[in-house]
Amino acid sequence: MNIRIIGNYVGQALRVEWLFMIPALILSLVFCEWYSAIGFAVTVAALVLVSVGLSRVKVEERTIYTREGFVIVALSWISMSLFGALPFFIIGAIPNYIDCIFETVSGFTTTGASILRDVEAMPRSLLYWRSFTNWLGGMGAIVFLLAISPKEKTKGSLRILRAESPGPIVGKLVPKIRSTALLLYKIYIALTVLEMIMLIAGGMPVFESVCHAFSTAGTGGFSVKNASIGAYDSDYIQIVIGVFMLLFGINFNVFYLLLIRKIKQALFNQELRLYLGIAAFSTAAITINTLSMFDNVGEALKHGFFQVSSIMTTTGFATTDFNLWPEFSKCLLVVLMILGACAGSTAGGIKMARLLILLKSFRNTIQRMIHPRSVKIIKIDGEVTEESTVREVTVFMTAYVMIFGASILAVSLDNFDFETTATAVVATLNNIGPGLGQVGPTGNFADFSIFSKIVLSLDMLIGRLEIFPMLMLAAPSMWKREK
Amino acid sequence: MNIRIIGNYVGQALRVEWLFMIPALILSLVFCEWYSAIGFAVTVAALVLVSVGLSRVKVEERTIYTREGFVIVALSWISMSLFGALPFFIIGAIPNYIDCIFETVSGFTTTGASILRDVEAMPRSLLYWRSFTNWLGGMGAIVFLLAISPKEKTKGSLRILRAESPGPIVGKLVPKIRSTALLLYKIYIALTVLEMIMLIAGGMPVFESVCHAFSTAGTGGFSVKNASIGAYDSDYIQIVIGVFMLLFGINFNVFYLLLIRKIKQALFNQELRLYLGIAAFSTAAITINTLSMFDNVGEALKHGFFQVSSIMTTTGFATTDFNLWPEFSKCLLVVLMILGACAGSTAGGIKMARLLILLKSFRNTIQRMIHPRSVKIIKIDGEVTEESTVREVTVFMTAYVMIFGASILAVSLDNFDFETTATAVVATLNNIGPGLGQVGPTGNFADFSIFSKIVLSLDMLIGRLEIFPMLMLAAPSMWKREK
Repeated sequence: MNIRIIGNYVGQALRVEWLFMIPALILSLVFCEWYSAIGFAVTVAALVLVSVGLSRVKVEERTIYTREGFVIVALSWISMSLFGALPFFIIGAIPNYIDCIFETVSGFTTTGASILRDVEAMPRSLLYWRSFTNWLGGMGAIVFLLAISPKEKTKGSLRILRAESPGPIVGKLVPKIRSTALLLYKIYIALTVLEMIMLIAGGMPVFESVCHAFSTAGTGGFSVKNASIGAYDSDYIQIVIGVFMLLFGINFNVFYLLLIRKIKQALFNQELRLYLGIAAFSTAAITINTLSMFDNVGEALKHGFFQVSSIMTTTGFATTDFNLWPEFSKCLLVVLMILGACAGSTAGGIKMARLLILLKSFRNTIQRMIHPRSVKIIKIDGEVTEESTVREVTVFMTAYVMIFGASILAVSLDNFDFETTATAVVATLNNIGPGLGQVGPTGNFADFSIFSKIVLSLDMLIGRLEIFPMLMLAAPSMWKREK
Repeated sequence: MNIRIIGNYVGQALRVEWLFMIPALILSLVFCEWYSAIGFAVTVAALVLVSVGLSRVKVEERTIYTREGFVIVALSWISMSLFGALPFFIIGAIPNYIDCIFETVSGFTTTGASILRDVEAMPRSLLYWRSFTNWLGGMGAIVFLLAISPKEKTKGSLRILRAESPGPIVGKLVPKIRSTALLLYKIYIALTVLEMIMLIAGGMPVFESVCHAFSTAGTGGFSVKNASIGAYDSDYIQIVIGVFMLLFGINFNVFYLLLIRKIKQALFNQELRLYLGIAAFSTAAITINTLSMFDNVGEALKHGFFQVSSIMTTTGFATTDFNLWPEFSKCLLVVLMILGACAGSTAGGIKMARLLILLKSFRNTIQRMIHPRSVKIIKIDGEVTEESTVREVTVFMTAYVMIFGASILAVSLDNFDFETTATAVVATLNNIGPGLGQVGPTGNFADFSIFSKIVLSLDMLIGRLEIFPMLMLAAPSMWKREK
């Protein structure tokens, strides 16, 4: 294990963090929130100190292998969360440091689960930082790092991109890693800014538009309102955010293909069609199922669409308390929580690409049982999916189910009802935010024990980094010395 | 598809059914239950008619391929359930035919879930038949058929054994199929009779001992008492049944190896150790967690052991209402429901052998990620597990999760609470019997809609036959004509 290059990269990730904390610091001064300003200033100082220290580490061997890639990403995210939690803690906005970590991990992992009982009572600069963690976590701090690195003197940085970006197959959009990372961020920023403008145009205050655009883009779901997007009575605002959530759940490759005018290739890929198909079906099913709860079909459709878009993209905004919906709609939402949106987007969950591979691998095995001599390969959009990818997906699923079960057992020690316990794990492991029962859209995670909060924080990290980086940290053979 | 041989085998399975219904008919006469006698007599007559009809089908090609094996098993089980439900229906003991089917499917699949609100009000000969379905379903009617077939003129009958017997790898104990099937039944009968004797010796009435021994052996869990085994105040009886449940959850290979005195090989296999390890750990955890609910540690341990043994082997007997236990113990029981016991036993669930393969395949993939050049194979008890077995296990898991999700959605239309909905599916798909909430040990499945009862009946069949036979029936390419 190349400890030096790991330390070096973690230091650089922390540098990205303090760079992005400066706007929050400035904002706290603009808003005259002096305590918050102190909190940010102290944190920035600590981050500068540590990142400068780590940048002094001499790296001799500049090749990143898979395992280094995983460890860099896992440790960067943990460190960023520990430091990102400091502003909340220093000024006592959240008294318990574990709570601060939970809230920050929830931000960076784009979960949006909160331990705050009253969001609107928080200083605005802290709310800005909270929403911004959603945005930075969505695309990833190290992808940002790769985007701004002057030249690629490190070999194997694709492995970091792979470890940090969601999805079973991460390809380069363009031959160079740096250009790929840059392109991803350009599309990301453009869409975010577009949403901000459209929200401001709809009459949402500028500060709230900025925060909500950040949280939508990262599919995070932190709101600055206690009633989430339900606080806005405007159909326009709810529909704009509903549509943008759906957009941020699409594989960014699609936007790139649209940019270079390969429109057919962009719109006819199997993952996109599966994604939109499931979203449309679920919206229709929920609209019918909840019809009696709303004044007219239009209202039911609007709320159905918003909630499906929010849950499937693992954002977690809400315009209505879906905890009160009939059991079928609630169960469908739980299924959507687990499925998630497209690979290569900012969303969490198992993701459409994996679902596609699983479905095809399943059909394949059935075929082989019926016709033993037929050797079938799995193709997606005409391209053969490698056997190793298929194996990794199935192992991913196994690990997913096991972590799911173990987490439920751990959290059940708090003795909440089954619905709350199970959906708290679903909502964190898949980076949604709200679940059902006591962690429903009007509830929060405040009442869990410290132990459960740590478990759920780990679940959020495991979910965002897609299991393997976090597991690698725990694998003993990872840390054995090379012979 | 060789329709003729399928029809032929289904007919033979129905012959086994009427043969075994004769004792129930005799019992109804002995107990002077005239209505039941009519019910059994009519059913036997119908079965004789159909099975004779099907035995007249001329079979030209006597080779059973994998798909024929699957279809024979799936159709036999469905037909046996449809006929086995008739005695309940004809005499109006259960007025609705769908309820009769639910109860019979629950019996044959060794689930033990019931729609009866008052078991003790049923005629005793019907209770006998109900418990007997547990016993026959445990080892399988077609395995019985193979055991008594005079000679093996059919090629490929191992494929039927494979399709009907639980577990990812089904081997022959001895070179001949017939001898293997016979041996399995000999062990099965011997253990069942031993339990009967021990229960009678402990003071349980003979009729109840016979019924409970049948239900224990098949890991079914149908009791003749409303309070299940909790109706018996005797520690001896509870412990005897607890231990026998655990025994019937062990791979029958182990008993065979013990018989031929390969004691070391029998006791040191990895699956057995995993099974006993998980059982011991769970018993200890639940004992500690429920300590405050019982008078002393001994009581807590006794109930903890009984419930763990009952749930892990997917039997479903209860000595206490575990629905009132703390959430951790309840969640642990749900995890055990899903895990199940050993392959090659009468138990349901995912099973230890699959868990072992999944765990090893998982470690393997992690290793390959860390050290890409290491090519690792999966070994269990020193023997290499074939790649195709590993793939089938992972596909099994995928199908399992998907069926699980779809069933929850279907059942959620009844609008029960989440705990009831989810555990009703867990309890049927894994052939347990009771779940939590309204389907807990003191509840029943009576209040579900007809639609849910059909879905849950299918889940029971899917669970018992381990997914593929039932899925095959639905695969369109299965029924295409050969070129």
